[in-house]
Amino acid sequence: MTTPSLPKLPRDRNNDYQADIIQQRQALIAEHSPTDLQHTSRYSIDPEQCRGNIENFTGCVQVPMGFAGPVLVHGEHAQGEFYVPMATTEGTLVASYSRGMRLTREAGGITCTVVDDAMQRAPIFVFENARHARDFGLWVTANFDHIKAAAEATTRSGKLRDIEQYSAGKMRWLRFNMTTGDAAGQNMVSKATHHACQWILAQQPAGLEHFSLAANFDTDKKHSFVNSLHTRGKRVVAEITLPAALITEVMHTSGEALFKQRQLSNLGAFMVGSASNGAHFANGVAAVFLACGQDVANVAESSAGFVYSELKDNGDYYFSVTIPSLIVASYGGGTGLPTQRECLESMDCYGTGKAHKLAEIIAATVLCGELSLASAIVSDQWVSSHDAYGRNRP
Amino acid sequence: MTTPSLPKLPRDRNNDYQADIIQQRQALIAEHSPTDLQHTSRYSIDPEQCRGNIENFTGCVQVPMGFAGPVLVHGEHAQGEFYVPMATTEGTLVASYSRGMRLTREAGGITCTVVDDAMQRAPIFVFENARHARDFGLWVTANFDHIKAAAEATTRSGKLRDIEQYSAGKMRWLRFNMTTGDAAGQNMVSKATHHACQWILAQQPAGLEHFSLAANFDTDKKHSFVNSLHTRGKRVVAEITLPAALITEVMHTSGEALFKQRQLSNLGAFMVGSASNGAHFANGVAAVFLACGQDVANVAESSAGFVYSELKDNGDYYFSVTIPSLIVASYGGGTGLPTQRECLESMDCYGTGKAHKLAEIIAATVLCGELSLASAIVSDQWVSSHDAYGRNRP
Amino acid sequence: MTTPSLPKLPRDRNNDYQADIIQQRQALIAEHSPTDLQHTSRYSIDPEQCRGNIENFTGCVQVPMGFAGPVLVHGEHAQGEFYVPMATTEGTLVASYSRGMRLTREAGGITCTVVDDAMQRAPIFVFENARHARDFGLWVTANFDHIKAAAEATTRSGKLRDIEQYSAGKMRWLRFNMTTGDAAGQNMVSKATHHACQWILAQQPAGLEHFSLAANFDTDKKHSFVNSLHTRGKRVVAEITLPAALITEVMHTSGEALFKQRQLSNLGAFMVGSASNGAHFANGVAAVFLACGQDVANVAESSAGFVYSELKDNGDYYFSVTIPSLIVASYGGGTGLPTQRECLESMDCYGTGKAHKLAEIIAATVLCGELSLASAIVSDQWVSSHDAYGRNRP
Amino acid sequence: MTTPSLPKLPRDRNNDYQADIIQQRQALIAEHSPTDLQHTSRYSIDPEQCRGNIENFTGCVQVPMGFAGPVLVHGEHAQGEFYVPMATTEGTLVASYSRGMRLTREAGGITCTVVDDAMQRAPIFVFENARHARDFGLWVTANFDHIKAAAEATTRSGKLRDIEQYSAGKMRWLRFNMTTGDAAGQNMVSKATHHACQWILAQQPAGLEHFSLAANFDTDKKHSFVNSLHTRGKRVVAEITLPAALITEVMHTSGEALFKQRQLSNLGAFMVGSASNGAHFANGVAAVFLACGQDVANVAESSAGFVYSELKDNGDYYFSVTIPSLIVASYGGGTGLPTQRECLESMDCYGTGKAHKLAEIIAATVLCGELSLASAIVSDQWVSSHDAYGRNRP
Repeated sequence: MTTPSLPKLPRDRNNDYQADIIQQRQALIAEHSPTDLQHTSRYSIDPEQCRGNIENFTGCVQVPMGFAGPVLVHGEHAQGEFYVPMATTEGTLVASYSRGMRLTREAGGITCTVVDDAMQRAPIFVFENARHARDFGLWVTANFDHIKAAAEATTRSGKLRDIEQYSAGKMRWLRFNMTTGDAAGQNMVSKATHHACQWILAQQPAGLEHFSLAANFDTDKKHSFVNSLHTRGKRVVAEITLPAALITEVMHTSGEALFKQRQLSNLGAFMVGSASNGAHFANGVAAVFLACGQDVANVAESSAGFVYSELKDNGDYYFSVTIPSLIVASYGGGTGLPTQRECLESMDCYGTGKAHKLAEIIAATVLCGELSLASAIVSDQWVSSHDAYGRNRP
Repeated sequence: MTTPSLPKLPRDRNNDYQADIIQQRQALIAEHSPTDLQHTSRYSIDPEQCRGNIENFTGCVQVPMGFAGPVLVHGEHAQGEFYVPMATTEGTLVASYSRGMRLTREAGGITCTVVDDAMQRAPIFVFENARHARDFGLWVTANFDHIKAAAEATTRSGKLRDIEQYSAGKMRWLRFNMTTGDAAGQNMVSKATHHACQWILAQQPAGLEHFSLAANFDTDKKHSFVNSLHTRGKRVVAEITLPAALITEVMHTSGEALFKQRQLSNLGAFMVGSASNGAHFANGVAAVFLACGQDVANVAESSAGFVYSELKDNGDYYFSVTIPSLIVASYGGGTGLPTQRECLESMDCYGTGKAHKLAEIIAATVLCGELSLASAIVSDQWVSSHDAYGRNRP
Repeated sequence: MTTPSLPKLPRDRNNDYQADIIQQRQALIAEHSPTDLQHTSRYSIDPEQCRGNIENFTGCVQVPMGFAGPVLVHGEHAQGEFYVPMATTEGTLVASYSRGMRLTREAGGITCTVVDDAMQRAPIFVFENARHARDFGLWVTANFDHIKAAAEATTRSGKLRDIEQYSAGKMRWLRFNMTTGDAAGQNMVSKATHHACQWILAQQPAGLEHFSLAANFDTDKKHSFVNSLHTRGKRVVAEITLPAALITEVMHTSGEALFKQRQLSNLGAFMVGSASNGAHFANGVAAVFLACGQDVANVAESSAGFVYSELKDNGDYYFSVTIPSLIVASYGGGTGLPTQRECLESMDCYGTGKAHKLAEIIAATVLCGELSLASAIVSDQWVSSHDAYGRNRP
Repeated sequence: MTTPSLPKLPRDRNNDYQADIIQQRQALIAEHSPTDLQHTSRYSIDPEQCRGNIENFTGCVQVPMGFAGPVLVHGEHAQGEFYVPMATTEGTLVASYSRGMRLTREAGGITCTVVDDAMQRAPIFVFENARHARDFGLWVTANFDHIKAAAEATTRSGKLRDIEQYSAGKMRWLRFNMTTGDAAGQNMVSKATHHACQWILAQQPAGLEHFSLAANFDTDKKHSFVNSLHTRGKRVVAEITLPAALITEVMHTSGEALFKQRQLSNLGAFMVGSASNGAHFANGVAAVFLACGQDVANVAESSAGFVYSELKDNGDYYFSVTIPSLIVASYGGGTGLPTQRECLESMDCYGTGKAHKLAEIIAATVLCGELSLASAIVSDQWVSSHDAYGRNRP
């Protein structure tokens, strides 16, 4: 067995974001590995700005960013054309999304709608038996106003909309649904829920045995049916009807072919128990998230989705994507970091009142990627385009 | 309805990665938005290196990176201590993983094992009826050697291991399982499968009506039961037994408390149909992926997982995580970009023969994050630690 | 291709339940097959009683019925001991449930609680776009009282409790939750929902394109996450704490062994995406359903479930089962048929005000079967007991 | 708390199926409940025939049975027309299936194909760590012939086809796939797997900590993705193409309308995580199972399924159902009971070599029920037909 021998990473209790301590960490890594971090240690931003975003700051990863588009969006918040910043290392991706953006722009643009909005924390209360748990559920409903007041006492922008209840055995999960303004809101909701639960616990619910602030009913950083059914973050829909002639002209395929492929993909997704019946929501979501300072770990939830399409009698093709758990922020988290903020600003999506706009643009982007990939598969261009643009090294 | 009016993004057919055309794009964005991309347009890398990774290159996103650890790993490939580079904008994350790394290092280190390895593409063959489809399945089994030869003709490193078959109605999906060396391999497998299917189609299977290279049986960039059951990328396990006293000392809780929380989380995950019964695999996976040039869109699949733990009679706590679809590469894709390569090199994980090593380190990292977050929840430090370290702006 | 040649089944438009027409059907079958239906054509009941339960009545299937128990139940409705009628053809089943009933009776009895109660129909409304669909959702909430009145106009016992809303694309599903008294209530809820939807349609919702009374959001006669999360029929919990010594004495195993087996079964169920983490809820449910005139097709939903257990420090074993979608009736459907009614009466579960009582007894029965089978597996008696009691013919 | 006071059920160790002991049990029930079991105690069969099917035999439940059809089937085993016996208490059901049978018969009949066949038991082996578990998996593959010999030593008709392997943490599940002739085969496979595992255990696998014969990877008596993907029992497909004019004439709707409804139902089923995207497979499966002495508890698995349809350019409608886990027997279990045997014989499905034939007829039946119910929903006859035929008592 290896004996631990590597030193601790140097930290400065007074200010861990100063050049000196950062350099000490870089030196330590250089000493113990084949790299000198020469690129990672170069950045244009002030490390001090990363306080609250990362610990042990040692440098920056530079991720290439390209713009796709312009995409034409008819949202309630995003109205007009947007160049969409996408950060990725997957060749073909930006080109493919751009192709879909050209198609949809020529088709008249994409209608986008945020249909739901809530962030969750779901504490669990365990009782002596199921009867106490059930009665507690009734008590919670009766005392909603008190619980709401306790939750909202910890936050200016968060509002407790409602509490879903779920039960098994002697357990009761309360799924707190909060609106969180323009922040993604996980921490805000955790804090508010924690405070609300302290109030609940202080009332000494009858028969309570155990409490925990979370036990996988949220579900944070992972896909679940409960999230897809009941929304986590923004639930957003993008829709378009593509004229038959345009599909042929731009995509070299037809509505019939796309619709047939969709039938097979729908069945496949159902059989395998997939988080999405779409093709690759995750690509568009991840690339915009990364560019715009969103939490890329949320790709776990935000990659889930539903595609629904209709083939019209005249060959036109109605196509929609629904992202049920799109976790986006235009404020807080990583949005304020210099490059990320610039990417948000390139779409005028930074700051107050912009989260829904960002959600709409992402949904439109995802729709474009779905149409582009499906067309490539159907017209057998998929492998060849990755050969042309991607870093294939067989 | 908005009339499209924004200009196309400038492109240079001869070399789209030159300074001039990049600046034209930057200027266009600056002209049409409130940002001048002053940070995004600064980078230490040569854009030419991004060819094959992105189109319409316009700059770089700088993502803060910190090291966690050292973590002590007893893998078959990763042996010893490692500082783990994590790129994230979620405050608390690196600190939390580091805490888990301290705990597990003092407990003697984490045993890691890659138990399976395969990348997929799953073409669909549609027949006149189910009988043809079934008979085709038998034919595929009988002709595996030919199919394997056709698939492997397109690649030096990819090997066709086996073909799973799935059926419904008159359809037959063939799920090609290939080993792909140190590349993630999606494109390699697409190309090989495409070539194999061309051979199959040339044999004119009886009753064939329709073919498509993919229809959601892979499933690429999305979680599914089929991936979690049958592996996509690496299936990797990390395990440890924590002494009771150490849990108390480092985590201020106990094996009993962690185990009880696990029971509730297991049931919660089962009820909601989650991709994982863990707490937040996605955080560790995404942060290392981002630092190390992996495709963050694959967080969709790679965030799935299984936790299994045992409480020993003496209070010791056996804990394991299994990541069934960890898609990692030590070569190709984004791994060669300068900062990403440096991060890989900091663990000596760049290049030939390192993909399994990287998988083991990521699994160990994920395990540490699970223990740290679970302990925080159980000991009620979770909200307070995010208040201390995170960017909470209620 | 075969030319259709068999005659139509004889029917009598005036009275299809008379001896004469029944005999004509029996004769037709006898003429065209190797059987003369000599047993099937003997029954003690009056076929006229089957009106409303079956068409083309041709005889009765005789299913052997045995009593298990007595089981000791501490419900809110079922209080005391019950012999439980079970109709089955699986040898060992009644013996196994009886063993569990002996164990739990000696342990002091089973606490049972109905924690939720609702039957559903979920019509779908399709709009021109997602915005109309979302706004319709708000309208439904605002007009709940009107909708409730319309729904309840068709039924004396059904009450519309609430309407869950679900959305994707331009669709809105309304999941009507009704309490249905002592009837299972599917038809009652269909009728009420149909009437309510007629009222809704008459209000001409803006942008409505299409309507259908059902599209798999109920979900009737099939398992789903939505049913397991949100209840279909009765949601009922049975719980017990078994003394360590008793487990050893009666089951020849221990709480430790049962708990370990549970850990493995929990993980297995999670990985395979099972409808239940239990062992065989379906056996107990189906056998009582069949004896008691419940709809055995509902085994599809009612076989789903959750097991949760705890191992106490002293070796005692807390064990619970939750059946989230138990569809039971003490009135209507097949409950009034003579033998079925007798089985219900044997537990005093026939007629008004008995559905919750029946639900509690079934949950207690299911719990007993889980403990018995798990003990058999753990103590390696499973295969041998089926050899002794069952119809094994290798 | 209630004190146990009811007497044990009388049993006769020498022969528990004699009239005397049966009457003692009937008398006991009559004494302690409001029923005298006057109908339940009348039956035409000899209780002795129920040995091996039930314990504590106390009488028979009489379930009304009607024939549907004739249905025209083009199977590999079932060829021609069949009257299908259905036992149910749900009014409308037989009439509805008969309507679908008329439609499909006029359309030229239903093509049915059994595409896979296997029954499972999935023992679990727990090791000291994941590495041992993985290596054990390789050993199992290498020793398949020995394991097969050990499994098949216990049975004449069962054959071990292959062993699927699944892993998480330090566990390895082996999913034994056996063909079981004309028996359903659960007990046969349990016994064979048990014997094979005894052989495996005798080889003392390195690092083995624990073994159990089952831990929810089968999955018996419950739906799961693993069963739907990999078959449990028979995987059977039924298919037909309906002429447009016939749909209008018989069903008063159109292929277009049915196909549109299917689109919505597919999405609904996907969103809710249903075991089936069909409408009510369970109804047909349960009614034939009950009539034919199949185990109705298996409705849990056998109700799962996949519908796939295509709308042709001329308005014709291709429609298929796939039942991935249809557990049927023409021998053993309840098939030999007098009334059940007669029902099997009415289709010439009793005895050796008839299980596949029965599977084909059930699949054809299920298809008819799907078309009938979908047509009723689409043409808005659903509620009214249940009002006319069913036992609606609002």
